[in-house]
Amino acid sequence: MAVRHIHDPNGADCRAVAGVLSRIGDKWTVLLVEMLKDGPMRFNEMKRGVNGISQRMLTLTLRGLERDGLVARTVYPTVPPKVEYALTGLGQTLTGAIAALGDWARANGAAMAEARAKFDAAHQTPAAPMTSGAS
Amino acid sequence: MAVRHIHDPNGADCRAVAGVLSRIGDKWTVLLVEMLKDGPMRFNEMKRGVNGISQRMLTLTLRGLERDGLVARTVYPTVPPKVEYALTGLGQTLTGAIAALGDWARANGAAMAEARAKFDAAHQTPAAPMTSGAS
Repeated sequence: MAVRHIHDPNGADCRAVAGVLSRIGDKWTVLLVEMLKDGPMRFNEMKRGVNGISQRMLTLTLRGLERDGLVARTVYPTVPPKVEYALTGLGQTLTGAIAALGDWARANGAAMAEARAKFDAAHQTPAAPMTSGAS
Repeated sequence: MAVRHIHDPNGADCRAVAGVLSRIGDKWTVLLVEMLKDGPMRFNEMKRGVNGISQRMLTLTLRGLERDGLVARTVYPTVPPKVEYALTGLGQTLTGAIAALGDWARANGAAMAEARAKFDAAHQTPAAPMTSGAS
């Protein structure tokens, strides 16, 4: 299969890929898809699982994933209702690419942090002079 | 090598990965790294290559990639000066994971768009009633 080049003349491919990546490249999306790889989960399990995600951001991200056809939401008619989230078939196909990105992040996060510290040290602007408070 | 679980009890791994992903998961980052895989490029070449990127966003994204140690900027002392951007060794290691994501996006963008259209049709809110303009 020929790999399509990213800078094709008409740019249609490029725009389409940019649109998809703006959704699946999101950090919460990556973390949630990676977590759901092991099976369906409930909302509060996911909230505990992804450290630092707010209730609102988890709700929005799951709704976006559901809208994109990557996650299915199932409500079981129990009292209280049980709601589960699971990857769809399309979502399952994404886990390989997502895992590669997650593994890279775990392996190279420290090297990136080191590069950032060096860059900031080399490009720091002089501190602003102290000024007395304007009335 | 043991794969670390995303929802580890202390959450440190999860936070670190989220931080890295918030940088490398960005759509412009993915497109630029994919483009630089084939060799160094000049600013205007990249601007033409990534359809839809603004001058300002390209500048910011390249500076972010340089800060993260993924891209090196080289200035050649010609008149006018020639400036080239190239992947660093660390940046090269990222191309495999990035290509997997790009390929997935190209293969499944249409399926995602279809899922979105279905979701929106099922969840549409009734149109707001027409109101006469308030004075």
